[in-house]
Amino acid sequence: MSYEILTTETVADYLKSLQAMHPVFSRFDNLEVIEVGDGNLNYVYLISNRDDPDETVALKQAVPYLRVVGESWALTRERMRFEIQALEKQRAVCPDLVPEIYYSSVEMSVVIMQNLTKHKILRGQIIEGNVFPKLAEHMSTFLANTLFYNSDWYLNSGEKKEAVAQSINPELCKLTEDFVFTFPYEKNETNTYNEELTEDDLNFLHQDGELKVAVAEMKYKFMNNAEALLHGDLHIGSIMTNEEETYIIDPEFTFYGPMGFDIGALIGNLFISYFSQEHWQKLRGNDPLEYRTWILGTITSTWNQFESKFDALWKEHQHDNDPLYFDYPAGEEHAKLQRDKFLKHVFGDTLGFAACKMMRRIFGLAKVADIADIKDLKERARIERMTLQLGKILATQRDQFRSIEEVVERAKTLSPLL
Amino acid sequence: MSYEILTTETVADYLKSLQAMHPVFSRFDNLEVIEVGDGNLNYVYLISNRDDPDETVALKQAVPYLRVVGESWALTRERMRFEIQALEKQRAVCPDLVPEIYYSSVEMSVVIMQNLTKHKILRGQIIEGNVFPKLAEHMSTFLANTLFYNSDWYLNSGEKKEAVAQSINPELCKLTEDFVFTFPYEKNETNTYNEELTEDDLNFLHQDGELKVAVAEMKYKFMNNAEALLHGDLHIGSIMTNEEETYIIDPEFTFYGPMGFDIGALIGNLFISYFSQEHWQKLRGNDPLEYRTWILGTITSTWNQFESKFDALWKEHQHDNDPLYFDYPAGEEHAKLQRDKFLKHVFGDTLGFAACKMMRRIFGLAKVADIADIKDLKERARIERMTLQLGKILATQRDQFRSIEEVVERAKTLSPLL
Repeated sequence: MSYEILTTETVADYLKSLQAMHPVFSRFDNLEVIEVGDGNLNYVYLISNRDDPDETVALKQAVPYLRVVGESWALTRERMRFEIQALEKQRAVCPDLVPEIYYSSVEMSVVIMQNLTKHKILRGQIIEGNVFPKLAEHMSTFLANTLFYNSDWYLNSGEKKEAVAQSINPELCKLTEDFVFTFPYEKNETNTYNEELTEDDLNFLHQDGELKVAVAEMKYKFMNNAEALLHGDLHIGSIMTNEEETYIIDPEFTFYGPMGFDIGALIGNLFISYFSQEHWQKLRGNDPLEYRTWILGTITSTWNQFESKFDALWKEHQHDNDPLYFDYPAGEEHAKLQRDKFLKHVFGDTLGFAACKMMRRIFGLAKVADIADIKDLKERARIERMTLQLGKILATQRDQFRSIEEVVERAKTLSPLL
Repeated sequence: MSYEILTTETVADYLKSLQAMHPVFSRFDNLEVIEVGDGNLNYVYLISNRDDPDETVALKQAVPYLRVVGESWALTRERMRFEIQALEKQRAVCPDLVPEIYYSSVEMSVVIMQNLTKHKILRGQIIEGNVFPKLAEHMSTFLANTLFYNSDWYLNSGEKKEAVAQSINPELCKLTEDFVFTFPYEKNETNTYNEELTEDDLNFLHQDGELKVAVAEMKYKFMNNAEALLHGDLHIGSIMTNEEETYIIDPEFTFYGPMGFDIGALIGNLFISYFSQEHWQKLRGNDPLEYRTWILGTITSTWNQFESKFDALWKEHQHDNDPLYFDYPAGEEHAKLQRDKFLKHVFGDTLGFAACKMMRRIFGLAKVADIADIKDLKERARIERMTLQLGKILATQRDQFRSIEEVVERAKTLSPLL
């Protein structure tokens, strides 16, 4: 059907009209339709059979504007094509970590997928202080598989270029370029921030030459280095979890970009969680030590497991594209040298991007509840300053850290574990 | 008209059928058509009015295979679309350095352009020992203008991404990936080389871990870093010159890639000329000092002028895309820091790519006459070894050189000026 914007009233009939929904729902006349209402960009509906709640799907539809602002902020529906494409490519290499897609339509800008009824958004879970023992294992697998299998280390040269061409996503990349890499670092009218922050706090970022150049370098890498198909917005609000399972959702910001951008998004957000849990744990009367130890352990383990999983995949496929290049007695050793050097480059990028993702949450338009929900504004400012400090250190010294453990130690000097 | 392969016999009628040729030729019944016959990829015809040789054009047509090999090596005619697009974009910013286009047809894979009757291919000119006093000035302008105006430092974010998408050139990039960055560094059956080179000479490249990793890094940059619209094959056989003018031709290898690749192609080829002129000048009974001094001066001046011209363009347009980012008292100074750091990155890339372009001419399939025409094979091997040595130094130490003068001094230690 040609494009029309669905509503709570029309969703059930739309589902009924789709052959692909008939194996999912046994009846369409008593569907409960809930509009989730928390998306910035799109509409999301959760639909279930009132008689049998196991018969349920999530439907996401893009509208030709930015949902959170309204029709005044035009945004093409192209983003749904990118999201569908990314979900399919990610699920192909991470079947247990990406929701199942039942149906998609580029024309209707719709995707209908598995409703994750037993999972919650990770950010809220972390703010509440819940532990997810398998998170690092799952996220490192997602990162290693999606980044490796969609890069030149696996794809052949022509496939990769075709995939890059299909994934050029100018509108959503521009949002990131502006709101992650530019506006928060200048006196931009879209910025908002805690009134307890001073002019000195602002200029700590806005007028520091080394920091400005470092952020501009990360932006340039974001705009130029088409290394792998990224999720593009991998903060802890794009992850749904329970104790056993992890699902990565909402990849509409996907494009071919630098690998470190996805890894850094996750790690940067977890550092924000680390800093802010100093507040939240005390507020709940807990000793922050245990939970914050889990967060730092998750950061360390996510990077270290990513590194070893990516290295193992690469080693397995090392000779697929260039069988002769390292085919000599010392070749295996030299190939390892190459992998180590490459992963060191990804590590530096990861820290630089983590930094940008952290800093922008303090001054930029889009806040995170971990920090923005702290009611005591002086306490909030104290935690925001730690975030800015670690951000600046990681952005400007990103290539000097030799391990994730060193980075974690640096964070601890800003906010001791206890 | 639908595609057909032109021949010496059919070219005149084809021109007559084109309205765009009527202002150029006063008659079509006495055209002289010469097939140039030296293209690797395409057919090139020079057509002139026998009565008035000033009425003349060059016609280039792509065939659906690699001309130099024949129909067995299929290659789509897409390359002509890329060439036309690049010629237009380059001429827009360098009107005096790119031939005028009179007519082009993607359907016929044809471009008809200015016949450069008063200019010769630079490689042959340099082998003969001719001096071109304006070469560095012209080439640095071409590089600064084409690379700056087709990068994120000038284009807005959406324009750039659209341009990248239009310029993804998988087939010709694959040729470069194989023949510049892979095959010459391994025991590949396509390699050919001077029989005076020994197994040790081969393994000097083929089994050196640091060199192999460095070349693989340059290949990865070539494949991933879409910085600017490149010429893509900017060796001294793609330049036509006389004492006053310089024209850059044959950009079918164009794509969005790392800026250093074009600059490095030129500089690497000039270093080959420097080494080989030790032989050619002596053979002609000349003291090699003067001519080789000119070559090194051209290398130095090309980089230094490129750097200052690119910097000036950037400074001029610094605030176009992000007017607020450096808008504070110390902002100009910080913007300069950014430009300096970026140009240092381009310099490192330039040396790394120059290295790959030099080394591949020794072991790879495609040779250059500067070296391959040296009849004394022992002498040729001596010069080839210098080329390999400088190549290895530049590839592995590319980020340690602080100036082009340092690089030139290093070349002189391998082959003293006299």
